[in-house]
Amino acid sequence: MKARALHSTLTTDSHIRLSLDEVDLAAPGPDEVIVRVDATPINPTDIALLLSGADLAKATTSGGALVAPVSPIILQIFAGRIDKPIPVGSEGSGTVVEAGSSAAAQALLGKIVAASGGMHATHRKFHVGAVRALPPGATAEDGASSFVNPMTALSFVETMRAEGHKAIVHTAAASNLGQMLIKICKADGVPLVNIVRKPAHVEQLKALGAEHVLDSSAPTFGDDLVSAVAATGATIAFDAIGGGTLGGKILDAMERVASKSMTTFSHYGSSTLKQLYIYGSLDRAPTTLQRTFGLTWSVGGYLVMNAMRKLGPEAVGRMFERVAAELKTTFASHYTARITLEQLLDLETLRACALMKTGEKYLIVAK
Amino acid sequence: MKARALHSTLTTDSHIRLSLDEVDLAAPGPDEVIVRVDATPINPTDIALLLSGADLAKATTSGGALVAPVSPIILQIFAGRIDKPIPVGSEGSGTVVEAGSSAAAQALLGKIVAASGGMHATHRKFHVGAVRALPPGATAEDGASSFVNPMTALSFVETMRAEGHKAIVHTAAASNLGQMLIKICKADGVPLVNIVRKPAHVEQLKALGAEHVLDSSAPTFGDDLVSAVAATGATIAFDAIGGGTLGGKILDAMERVASKSMTTFSHYGSSTLKQLYIYGSLDRAPTTLQRTFGLTWSVGGYLVMNAMRKLGPEAVGRMFERVAAELKTTFASHYTARITLEQLLDLETLRACALMKTGEKYLIVAK
Repeated sequence: MKARALHSTLTTDSHIRLSLDEVDLAAPGPDEVIVRVDATPINPTDIALLLSGADLAKATTSGGALVAPVSPIILQIFAGRIDKPIPVGSEGSGTVVEAGSSAAAQALLGKIVAASGGMHATHRKFHVGAVRALPPGATAEDGASSFVNPMTALSFVETMRAEGHKAIVHTAAASNLGQMLIKICKADGVPLVNIVRKPAHVEQLKALGAEHVLDSSAPTFGDDLVSAVAATGATIAFDAIGGGTLGGKILDAMERVASKSMTTFSHYGSSTLKQLYIYGSLDRAPTTLQRTFGLTWSVGGYLVMNAMRKLGPEAVGRMFERVAAELKTTFASHYTARITLEQLLDLETLRACALMKTGEKYLIVAK
Repeated sequence: MKARALHSTLTTDSHIRLSLDEVDLAAPGPDEVIVRVDATPINPTDIALLLSGADLAKATTSGGALVAPVSPIILQIFAGRIDKPIPVGSEGSGTVVEAGSSAAAQALLGKIVAASGGMHATHRKFHVGAVRALPPGATAEDGASSFVNPMTALSFVETMRAEGHKAIVHTAAASNLGQMLIKICKADGVPLVNIVRKPAHVEQLKALGAEHVLDSSAPTFGDDLVSAVAATGATIAFDAIGGGTLGGKILDAMERVASKSMTTFSHYGSSTLKQLYIYGSLDRAPTTLQRTFGLTWSVGGYLVMNAMRKLGPEAVGRMFERVAAELKTTFASHYTARITLEQLLDLETLRACALMKTGEKYLIVAK
């Protein structure tokens, strides 16, 4: 069958080219299904892949495609994708419209399933093992964002436990993911320090039942952070911002709290491991660490797929079950607007999506 | 008995006060010994504790003590040491001049031993379990630097193996520690990329048998680094510098090499873990990470005591045995000058020690 799929191509002349291309989908093999994509969100990770830092202010349209310049450094960093049209869409949900001959494939025919990868398309072919049937009563919109944010939020709590910490600091906490994390931590009794960047978000998260909500733009932020870290005992942080000094400030606050309970002074700092994981790049500036927090600390990149591998199949199974059971409550996503696949190539719409304002999220739906 | 010991005191008025104070040492208990310190080096870690960033350009003497201002931020970072005289001297060697009644203590009487902590003193009391008798024929000067650099260098190779890497990048590689690491890696067949900051050091390390020596001040450094990482397969780095962009450049080079072998593009970067450990702060500026190396990376503080705990007693025992066996070869230290404890409080001498020039090292010896 003929499908249409969004592609992002990094061209040798330092441009990103976005195009909606016709794709031939061969009939599914015995263990394959074809999913008609009914709903797929635009996640920050999709914007990152789609644009690779392209300057939308200088974007032009060319034969139905959208073309925007990138810095030449991007060609070096992403040498592996030069001149290759890359499918986009980290997750989504839809209906199985064709199924292979196997019993497993046939059982999915007509079902609404969720899947990952290349979902910014009209149709997508998957191995049966790569799709998850939604629970009864769930719509494609309910399932559209049931992987990236829910599994990431759950993995934070699982990672915290697996690595021996007892409370969490989270940044950009007013995000969809942040709101899920508040609900998970509340249900599980995990103390959580939420850091937001606007006073309005403080009220919003407190209304959700969050206990510790700090505004990083407040003049008292530094002291507030030390107090909240002391009150919760947080020694692990998950940071969506990445750039700037915030991550280092969190480690510094953890060290100040840990050093208060030291009985003898060590100029290597406390022996408490202070862990910062950077899982997003809302600020693409460099990460700047002042190293005022001794020598027992770690800062790492965080990718939900890596975390799932480390946590192991049992934990991951438990996480998927919880997502299914709480799809319409804990893991419900809220969307700013619904657009079509074609509209994403409309420059004004794309610019709005690319702003990635905290709490804003766009959903691509079938016409 | 009366001893004299060097102390560093951070005072509430934002100064560091260095003083040589008389200390009463009570007679040793059954399992204790008193060591007369014969030789003790001034390591970068000692300078860090001694000065805590004090501005020696503004130092003055006051009643036999040396006083220099520190930034008020130091009072916050090192709140635990305010107004407490801290003993200095991370390691050293000397003769057991008094011993407790136990057989273990008596067996050490007259022996030359190495010990850690507060060694910038004339005498020091230890539990017998805290001193290591030097091998026959070794002098106190041979044993003076037998802990910090040798155990740190050996721990790099042990950590590399334990964490699943197969080659190492090392910065400030012309240091005493760096020269030891070159010898260890050569003996063990571990590929090593040495980064130095001066052309003269390149020749020096090549003369020691180092294969990959890169000068970070050379215009070709970026490309040289990628080539050396590719040739060795290094995915772990130990960094003595800490501040600036070098650590991030090393991770970036590792990612460029790893991404070349990727068969499918991922904008999360390669799945190869790229590990940077910061074990020193020769540059006290912030660590600046451009995050051009995907999401599978980790940067951490590195402290030999933490590493030894992680590696476990069997590995640590093996490391101590090797240090003893190769004390006069692999682990021989070279000293720029020998000074007395009193001379360390001479401002000009202290300034020279505090420069921590790569390859320069001062030894305090008894008069």
